[in-house]
Amino acid sequence: MKIVGYRKKDQDAVTVGVLRDGFVRPLASLEEFWSDAAGWVARAEHLDSPEIDVTLVSVVPPVPESARVICVGLNYKAHAAEGGFTPPPYPTLFGRWTPSLSVDGAPTPVPASEAGLDWEGEVAAFIGTRLESVDAATGQAGVLGYACFNDLTARKAQKLTAQWTLGKNGDRSGPLGPLVPAHEVGDLSDGLRVQTRVNGTVVQDGNTRDLIFSVGEIIALISETFTLHPGDIIATGTPEGVGYVRNPPWLLGPGDIVEVEIDKLGVLRTPIVDASGRKGA
Amino acid sequence: MKIVGYRKKDQDAVTVGVLRDGFVRPLASLEEFWSDAAGWVARAEHLDSPEIDVTLVSVVPPVPESARVICVGLNYKAHAAEGGFTPPPYPTLFGRWTPSLSVDGAPTPVPASEAGLDWEGEVAAFIGTRLESVDAATGQAGVLGYACFNDLTARKAQKLTAQWTLGKNGDRSGPLGPLVPAHEVGDLSDGLRVQTRVNGTVVQDGNTRDLIFSVGEIIALISETFTLHPGDIIATGTPEGVGYVRNPPWLLGPGDIVEVEIDKLGVLRTPIVDASGRKGA
Repeated sequence: MKIVGYRKKDQDAVTVGVLRDGFVRPLASLEEFWSDAAGWVARAEHLDSPEIDVTLVSVVPPVPESARVICVGLNYKAHAAEGGFTPPPYPTLFGRWTPSLSVDGAPTPVPASEAGLDWEGEVAAFIGTRLESVDAATGQAGVLGYACFNDLTARKAQKLTAQWTLGKNGDRSGPLGPLVPAHEVGDLSDGLRVQTRVNGTVVQDGNTRDLIFSVGEIIALISETFTLHPGDIIATGTPEGVGYVRNPPWLLGPGDIVEVEIDKLGVLRTPIVDASGRKGA
Repeated sequence: MKIVGYRKKDQDAVTVGVLRDGFVRPLASLEEFWSDAAGWVARAEHLDSPEIDVTLVSVVPPVPESARVICVGLNYKAHAAEGGFTPPPYPTLFGRWTPSLSVDGAPTPVPASEAGLDWEGEVAAFIGTRLESVDAATGQAGVLGYACFNDLTARKAQKLTAQWTLGKNGDRSGPLGPLVPAHEVGDLSDGLRVQTRVNGTVVQDGNTRDLIFSVGEIIALISETFTLHPGDIIATGTPEGVGYVRNPPWLLGPGDIVEVEIDKLGVLRTPIVDASGRKGA
């Protein structure tokens, strides 16, 4: 099952619905959905609301505006090594704000100050319930579902200083696929293949069984310091194969198409455009 | 003029209003306010809406849920030096999410995993308009107003890895004072005294004339990579005198009162409580 957000034309309100074969079936308003996320996912199994042609609506991330997108750096040993980092003793956490998120098919602009954007295909986990000071098992049980994510990175901005935040929040630089319920995905340690392709060429081909820190462990650490809310997202980190460490470096430019394909989660496709695509962001 | 957000009891909707002598006058809904922020600030000068006793409402930050709170580290030379850092060639930017924000008088809990919280009194600047790839002068002209801010920091979490994000987003760890319009504040380079007191003892006594990067320069840099929106906030950095670098270290614990006082912006007072204060966050 694929759960998406959408707006009807000329309306601000976001509805959460189920996407299938080019049609969405409405489930609940964004606010209602996250007030009882597990309940709505269960009800979605038996949905009989009318179908809407998805081309008649704007698909948006099914994410509250206040959500924290907490990204984990260096969560695959081979990716840490390719960047010259030692695998860290704790998850390296940095943040995205929700205005940086976009959806499957939406174009991502390259800022004029960058030579290009770098790909980082990865699994995103959606938090389904309030989590304060929990252990890893409770944290894992609080995951509502997963989605494909591409943590498209402005490397120049990321590396200007010791803090990565600026380079991780470019306009529409965080395409996020539909949410697939956790019970359909199973345990990430059983292994989901994470593949990134640029214009059809495979550039990353990792597997979630190689994650250094599990989603439950990441949640447990975060929840010691702040309380996670329904709709918050953990981006679990990217495997090896990013572009900036190649010789010569390989970055995405206007006209390129980058795809992230993950077992059970589908394909997330992003066309890259030039900086004029920032208009409206 | 002091502009605040507030909720009527048992209502979710946030109104923006003007706070004076213990009463608020409603101005606009939060969404209306940020759709024409400069216009509403101008109209606020001639406000004749009915007054509401502020004790009958809940004051909240006048900030959209989607706002980016972009914090600048190491923006005073003496503060960089006390932490063992060289003044950086670019603003060191890290992020807070809006759920970490709170208001004057609200208690801030110390996470159970921390020995205490550290103070960081500073000036916050509110963005009033959309800013994409602007120069410093245009960026400065886009500032709607300023507020006192305390970037209360969970140092253990901040220093677990190279990225500071986790330690900068504790529950209710970002108290933010009322917004004072930019024309009442003038140019930060003319010098606003920034004083932090713990239980009445002065611990920081800096001045915005010592900022390494101006607000306009910070905005210009950010806007190269992502587009700033009305309601986004730049936290301009804290002067020297934080607690963790002292010998012995001095951190805030339950029962302490920390105040940030800034010329023209007022006093922001925060009682510190134990981790049981995380309930409801």
